[in-house]
Amino acid sequence: MRKSPLTLAAVTVALALPGLAVAQEAATAAPVGAAATDTVFILNSLLFLVGGFLVFWMAAGFAMLEAGLVRSKNVTMQLTKNVALFSLAAIFYYLIGYNLMYPLGTWSIDGVLSGVWGPGVLEAVGITAEQADDYSYASTGSDFFFQLMFCATTASIVSGTMAERVKLWPFLAFVIVLTAVIYPLQASWKWGGGFLDEMGFLDFAGSTVVHSVGGWAALTGALILGPRLGKYKAGKTIPMPGSNLALATLGTFILWLGWFGFNGGSQLAMGTVGDVADVSRIFANTNAAAAGGAVAALLLTQLLFKKPDLTMVLNGALAGLVSITAEPLTPSLGMATLTGAVGGVIVVFVVPMLDKMKIDDVVGAIPVHLVAGIWGTLAVVLTNPEANLVTQLTGIVVIALFVVISSAVVWLILRALTGIRVGEEDEVNGLDMAELGMEAYPEFSPS
Amino acid sequence: MRKSPLTLAAVTVALALPGLAVAQEAATAAPVGAAATDTVFILNSLLFLVGGFLVFWMAAGFAMLEAGLVRSKNVTMQLTKNVALFSLAAIFYYLIGYNLMYPLGTWSIDGVLSGVWGPGVLEAVGITAEQADDYSYASTGSDFFFQLMFCATTASIVSGTMAERVKLWPFLAFVIVLTAVIYPLQASWKWGGGFLDEMGFLDFAGSTVVHSVGGWAALTGALILGPRLGKYKAGKTIPMPGSNLALATLGTFILWLGWFGFNGGSQLAMGTVGDVADVSRIFANTNAAAAGGAVAALLLTQLLFKKPDLTMVLNGALAGLVSITAEPLTPSLGMATLTGAVGGVIVVFVVPMLDKMKIDDVVGAIPVHLVAGIWGTLAVVLTNPEANLVTQLTGIVVIALFVVISSAVVWLILRALTGIRVGEEDEVNGLDMAELGMEAYPEFSPS
Amino acid sequence: MRKSPLTLAAVTVALALPGLAVAQEAATAAPVGAAATDTVFILNSLLFLVGGFLVFWMAAGFAMLEAGLVRSKNVTMQLTKNVALFSLAAIFYYLIGYNLMYPLGTWSIDGVLSGVWGPGVLEAVGITAEQADDYSYASTGSDFFFQLMFCATTASIVSGTMAERVKLWPFLAFVIVLTAVIYPLQASWKWGGGFLDEMGFLDFAGSTVVHSVGGWAALTGALILGPRLGKYKAGKTIPMPGSNLALATLGTFILWLGWFGFNGGSQLAMGTVGDVADVSRIFANTNAAAAGGAVAALLLTQLLFKKPDLTMVLNGALAGLVSITAEPLTPSLGMATLTGAVGGVIVVFVVPMLDKMKIDDVVGAIPVHLVAGIWGTLAVVLTNPEANLVTQLTGIVVIALFVVISSAVVWLILRALTGIRVGEEDEVNGLDMAELGMEAYPEFSPS
Repeated sequence: MRKSPLTLAAVTVALALPGLAVAQEAATAAPVGAAATDTVFILNSLLFLVGGFLVFWMAAGFAMLEAGLVRSKNVTMQLTKNVALFSLAAIFYYLIGYNLMYPLGTWSIDGVLSGVWGPGVLEAVGITAEQADDYSYASTGSDFFFQLMFCATTASIVSGTMAERVKLWPFLAFVIVLTAVIYPLQASWKWGGGFLDEMGFLDFAGSTVVHSVGGWAALTGALILGPRLGKYKAGKTIPMPGSNLALATLGTFILWLGWFGFNGGSQLAMGTVGDVADVSRIFANTNAAAAGGAVAALLLTQLLFKKPDLTMVLNGALAGLVSITAEPLTPSLGMATLTGAVGGVIVVFVVPMLDKMKIDDVVGAIPVHLVAGIWGTLAVVLTNPEANLVTQLTGIVVIALFVVISSAVVWLILRALTGIRVGEEDEVNGLDMAELGMEAYPEFSPS
Repeated sequence: MRKSPLTLAAVTVALALPGLAVAQEAATAAPVGAAATDTVFILNSLLFLVGGFLVFWMAAGFAMLEAGLVRSKNVTMQLTKNVALFSLAAIFYYLIGYNLMYPLGTWSIDGVLSGVWGPGVLEAVGITAEQADDYSYASTGSDFFFQLMFCATTASIVSGTMAERVKLWPFLAFVIVLTAVIYPLQASWKWGGGFLDEMGFLDFAGSTVVHSVGGWAALTGALILGPRLGKYKAGKTIPMPGSNLALATLGTFILWLGWFGFNGGSQLAMGTVGDVADVSRIFANTNAAAAGGAVAALLLTQLLFKKPDLTMVLNGALAGLVSITAEPLTPSLGMATLTGAVGGVIVVFVVPMLDKMKIDDVVGAIPVHLVAGIWGTLAVVLTNPEANLVTQLTGIVVIALFVVISSAVVWLILRALTGIRVGEEDEVNGLDMAELGMEAYPEFSPS
Repeated sequence: MRKSPLTLAAVTVALALPGLAVAQEAATAAPVGAAATDTVFILNSLLFLVGGFLVFWMAAGFAMLEAGLVRSKNVTMQLTKNVALFSLAAIFYYLIGYNLMYPLGTWSIDGVLSGVWGPGVLEAVGITAEQADDYSYASTGSDFFFQLMFCATTASIVSGTMAERVKLWPFLAFVIVLTAVIYPLQASWKWGGGFLDEMGFLDFAGSTVVHSVGGWAALTGALILGPRLGKYKAGKTIPMPGSNLALATLGTFILWLGWFGFNGGSQLAMGTVGDVADVSRIFANTNAAAAGGAVAALLLTQLLFKKPDLTMVLNGALAGLVSITAEPLTPSLGMATLTGAVGGVIVVFVVPMLDKMKIDDVVGAIPVHLVAGIWGTLAVVLTNPEANLVTQLTGIVVIALFVVISSAVVWLILRALTGIRVGEEDEVNGLDMAELGMEAYPEFSPS
């Protein structure tokens, strides 16, 4: 999901001076191996639009996954949080985040801070080739649409871990800071052409920049929030099974589908033979990694627990997807399957490990998005000769520190200001009746 | 979703005289800013196919939304109605509607009536550029596919309002008239190049032509049908909460996803830099409006009722989508967000208002599709300099009168012929056992 | 879904000798009626990617359909099987199946056996036109992705019929053989350019090659496995209603949506005016057939049983889709509707017929995929002048014999080795607790 600095400069100028169109030569002949320039622009934009609506669909996936994995007394709340967080992400990424990630003004301190920004501005209606913000790339609207969905995904990751006990409004306040500032700032370090990008840090579609960021924010939140009442008693972990595994499975399939857009769209181009073949590789590898993760978790839970565990299999598939996200292009199909399988193994081992540490992650987002995200970022060195292990580690650590510290500050301020956790009675009765006064399945009495 | 009259004429001739191919010059060189003509034809057709399958998916969205918002004793019936109405729409739009909307024969009375029509006919297999019905536009099959989905959407809107009490077969009879005659006739006034189009009425993707038409038909039906038993007692509105809010949320996300095809596809072209940039704007604006509607409803229900209301938030998002549908192209992102937010506000105020008027709208389709549809049609004047408030109002009123009167006639005839409402005992026991003998969740006993 | 032998040869060489790029002339000018060659390659690949993700989505459709149609005590197991079978299909089609279907080595016995094969290999990263495995067709990655989804679909069909009593691991072992060997071998006879293709057998998207193969495997399995305990008592069929018809309806809509990719993508090309118009015809016809099937089942169940039956309507739509799959291109819209309607009629008559024969097909996959698949394959002769009834029958019978015999061998070996059926007590208690120790809806006590 790189934009070249040149591209960025063009965007910058065009956005900052909307009346002043960037002069660009009209393509007169298509090079061999590429469609005509107009067609390239169209196909790249189309990739962002199709990729973008697939990543949008992941918001529904997270909502269904989480609604299926919480207890029925918290389902309405989990659904409300997911719709609200996506909507707020859309508004605040537009108002602040987008131009913080791809700053309008001059660069300073390698993209960490930028002098000028404002709300996102699309290209004018009915532009010509000459009026396009970046004729050699894609339409600004398609780029904005695609990038927005990544920002929203980061927020979706957080809601699952902190489910069943965090208050609605403080959670949404955190989402605003995450999508307006935290996500865009660190994303600019890599995808905005900032210092991590210059350093050679590789993260194709965001194992670190999206998934581990969501994971770190979730982990920080879970530590500050504490586990659910009764989850850890006398050294034992009390199972609190999800209320609807059909929904959880649906959510997983939705995420799997959306991931083709997530990884495939991050090729950022589809207008040449090479680019579309690369997008195809990415689709095939993404699917292979998910399959590898699911099968690894299936086999491992059979071996370890004598009974396969569906929630582990679902999270195994998702961890496989996260694992391949940092580099879905260079691996062979076999290597992609193995990379994903390691993700599935991670889930099976990290889920009980977190419980031993009394870190209560309701849906398993930390193993899936954080730990498998780290693994995926490191795994880039196995297949991409341009990757450097130290650089990959540096990127992981820098972003970890930034997200953990900034998230902790926000959570602690929110805790001091309004509290972030519902009262004990409300938690026992369920957030649905306590905070919303509305049950998800009002006609069915829990046993 | 305009077709130029010229385009229509070409279609007309080609369809009426299938043996006589329209002579068209083969493109020899692509103009700057546009792909080669063949590529334009391909990309436009592709837009209709992708847009069309996304709008198809909205049928599933309505089914899930409505199944989630009715009580469990009526879920099987609501599902049956949704599958059946879509299927009947597909058949009757093919048999009658499509050629009534884009008439085969000569025009008369500005498209109100047309001399000749017959079932839809696709282009021959494996056409060449010269054989295409409209080489400068897109394939007939893709156009038919796309247009059909809009017709079916109109019918989907009606089923939610009248749920839990209308008889299956009279409802389906109404759907046949709606999709074969009522929808296509009024759609021809705008999208078939009829008098509303000539007058300058603007309705990009159908806030009026689709959504308010469904809404007016639903309102008319609800008035003739009357409220559910026990809904309004001694001046009070008795809440009848939906049985499955996870399904309702899923349905909303499905509709949101489908709307990218609904609005984006209505650009009707993707073969030039300007068109694909416009489609991109539309995607971004459509998403912004949905987010605005959801957040507005979230904040407003918190402020007014002290507790956020998920069903209001879901309907707020949908009302945001309806609000932007008449003009998803010209607004800025900020303006799109605000336009959608007004839709969300409409939902929060109109839902209780209808209850006060004892108009029983089970899923909230009237505020979402009718009232927000009117708002969206008027809002065109805020951002599109070509729009005229009086003309917009004229279009709204003309279509309202036509749909209300024709719907009322159909419902009254059906009521006289067969009755349109199930017996009291059947309504109390639920339509599932009474009319279908099949429960949706047979193993779960309602509390 | 044909590949020309020439195309195959090119693939073969390119895969076998990856270092040796196939020499191909760069296109210098686009012929009239076709986009430039690069654009054709891109658009064909895009068709496979979009078609492929839609067919992927069918895996979710099967999972939801089947989870909705089994009793709640078996839902977790049905979900687990569906996720696992798709994942295993992905791995084994990659390891063995793909190159068995499109063999790497020299042909022998008309494609029945091939000398050499190995795991699937994608094109290199960032290929040029000259390096493409098949520059006139599409990228290898997109082709692999698309073909894989068809293989997985075949496996999905089997799980529904054998639900609620087959053991997890033997079932998955069967899936491995089916997707690694049985499906690819017979598919190579038609789509790999084998003897059925040379004989003139027509099966556009797989009424026989996919759907009846899944259906025969399911029927064979059901016969060897036997019916569920208590299903047939004293000559009567005991109804065992599905636990969640909302899920079943969702699954049907998902499958319907995915089918646009299944049939539309099987055109294998979108880079000319003729191809995209054909894809459009296919989309429209596919939809018409589904509608025809649903309406036929709706009317027929009303007429025969006095009450419409939602599960019949859902299966009617699916049978309509299967019926049009062997020839979605040549029929008119009316003929497509009728072809699908016959599928709907088949469902209504075959479901009780199987019960009379004590063949216990839990979800109705045999009428839908097998019987409607045969009907669809025969119906090709009605609209495609190239089809020959005897050849169609030959193809059906040859593939039937091969699949029934090979499936029976595998099932019988598995029965001898490990048993394929759970114990009686486990079946009564449900597979979820017995084999997985995890309920799908743990908080809701079945009535």
